[in-house]
Amino acid sequence: MAICINNPVYIVSSASVVGQEEKNGPLGEHFDIYDEKDDTFGCKTWEKAESEMQRLALGKALSLAGKMDTDMEMLFAGDLLNQCIGSNYGLLNYDTAYIGLYGACSTAAEGLMLAAMLCSGGLVSRCASVASSHNASAERQFRSPLEYGGQRSPTAQWTVTGSAAYILSAVQKDLLFEKNAPKYAARITAVQPGRSLDAGINDITNMGAAMAPAASDTIVRFFKETGQRAKDFDLILTGDLGYEGTVILQDLMRCENFDISAVHNDCGLLIYDRARQDKHAGGSGCGCSAVVLSSYILKKLKQGKYKRILFVGTGALMSPMSLQQGLSIPGIAHLVQIEREEL
Amino acid sequence: MAICINNPVYIVSSASVVGQEEKNGPLGEHFDIYDEKDDTFGCKTWEKAESEMQRLALGKALSLAGKMDTDMEMLFAGDLLNQCIGSNYGLLNYDTAYIGLYGACSTAAEGLMLAAMLCSGGLVSRCASVASSHNASAERQFRSPLEYGGQRSPTAQWTVTGSAAYILSAVQKDLLFEKNAPKYAARITAVQPGRSLDAGINDITNMGAAMAPAASDTIVRFFKETGQRAKDFDLILTGDLGYEGTVILQDLMRCENFDISAVHNDCGLLIYDRARQDKHAGGSGCGCSAVVLSSYILKKLKQGKYKRILFVGTGALMSPMSLQQGLSIPGIAHLVQIEREEL
Repeated sequence: MAICINNPVYIVSSASVVGQEEKNGPLGEHFDIYDEKDDTFGCKTWEKAESEMQRLALGKALSLAGKMDTDMEMLFAGDLLNQCIGSNYGLLNYDTAYIGLYGACSTAAEGLMLAAMLCSGGLVSRCASVASSHNASAERQFRSPLEYGGQRSPTAQWTVTGSAAYILSAVQKDLLFEKNAPKYAARITAVQPGRSLDAGINDITNMGAAMAPAASDTIVRFFKETGQRAKDFDLILTGDLGYEGTVILQDLMRCENFDISAVHNDCGLLIYDRARQDKHAGGSGCGCSAVVLSSYILKKLKQGKYKRILFVGTGALMSPMSLQQGLSIPGIAHLVQIEREEL
Repeated sequence: MAICINNPVYIVSSASVVGQEEKNGPLGEHFDIYDEKDDTFGCKTWEKAESEMQRLALGKALSLAGKMDTDMEMLFAGDLLNQCIGSNYGLLNYDTAYIGLYGACSTAAEGLMLAAMLCSGGLVSRCASVASSHNASAERQFRSPLEYGGQRSPTAQWTVTGSAAYILSAVQKDLLFEKNAPKYAARITAVQPGRSLDAGINDITNMGAAMAPAASDTIVRFFKETGQRAKDFDLILTGDLGYEGTVILQDLMRCENFDISAVHNDCGLLIYDRARQDKHAGGSGCGCSAVVLSSYILKKLKQGKYKRILFVGTGALMSPMSLQQGLSIPGIAHLVQIEREEL
């Protein structure tokens, strides 16, 4: 069911932390913090490095918003690691109520969606939302350790090393503007929570195919319920379908008589340069959509390049064990409608 | 921050599914469904058995509420398995927007809390919440497979095989009553989301000690913010602190000048008979608090034995890998205030 966020909820600030591959990609200049050495962020394990990225991202987002952790009434967070330890440990030092999420790579959208609903409902005023993934921690958990040097299939995506944090507020005066600059804000105006869908894909190196049906389901339902169409948006941005999933999504939507190809893009396509940085089917991971939206996209929205966008976080809800036991991969997609508002 | 649930939200129905040990325990007669053969629920793997318990629990709760899956606007779910596959696969066939949670053993409380906040905020009218754990799937993932026959330490708790589902509604006419029976309902009237807290415990066989500080923190903050005390409640029910954690919680609260011992109980103490079924430090797992609240406790509330209760779900936010890497175990506790309302 599409849910209107009637009482204004704003994305007051956002911050992104990335690894070297992401910094070297086409969006590199837009990220706030990166590790210039080795993607360990000064930590002894990849898991701790991922936690450290979350800590840095939230700290930076809070400072950009001019807020303290104690100003946040709730903190939504999640990642891909077993038992979500990236978030559990990374955010431990923040003095805020902690709500753990598991939405696989859709976590950034899931957090924004829940935070927006709660702020709009009037039960809380300010929330933060954080998500992350790390290439080295994810690959060794889901496929094999990087040190093994396993060959990657053409449909395999590259797990993004990155974390982003968002500060949401229902209080308009929390918005900060530069002196004499025009006053525009990113406002969440609707959400569509996704249903989990299993299209029978059981190839752990083809996540795009597993998630595309769920993305199509969510966008189609949103179009039908709200009467909106692709032309009503400047951008429909999916999370991490990559090259494989992007084609499948656009095909599936054409079967439902919706052509989104003119305005559709995918964070997994934007984050790496296909010619210069061969990442096979593109980027993926909780961090992929989180850092792309939080940096480049929200900047363009505030600058006026985009006025209305749909952000559709996509996730694959399997575990290595569920695949070993012969199960296929369910997908999910949560949608967040974000608009540029003049104040 | 304590949050008042001002617009009424009711627990319309709940259902519990358990294994044989739980059925043979002191609360056995109160559970709705159990596996009388071998706790596999007709499945080939323990993980699938856990998914099947979730499927059965939600189906039963929906049927008790006289509702369909499509009547639910959102479904909150989580479990202890890597990537929450118990929930992902168990609830796949239900046609409802799916919100994955990770709150370790606090998941039942986390789901009730979020569902109540969203229903009260007016953005949705009806939600379901499900949580589960399975002794065999959890033990082999967190400690060692049962077939190894490892000796258990005295502070170790027994992961409950169980799943419970709750149907929440903001629509009073959703409440069903028996003919000529008095009309009483369980209403959620406040929640207090928990902060994650690390007290330095790093013994994976002593979860009670890791979670007790978080439980104390949440209850103390709730008392201070709302001005309520232990005497205002008929029962303060923690999730799965067990014998070890229960003593620690009561001690910690005495240090803050709150004596809850007269009204405190723990689901991990209630579910097994200590003399007859030796489970060392008591029950634990997402399923522990979920099935005890959903069956015995809510029944007593409706019957009038309890009028006001605090349900405090407790979780340990670690993974086996985080412990191998030398990190200690953060705990969390989410609180839900439930009252008996005459209609």
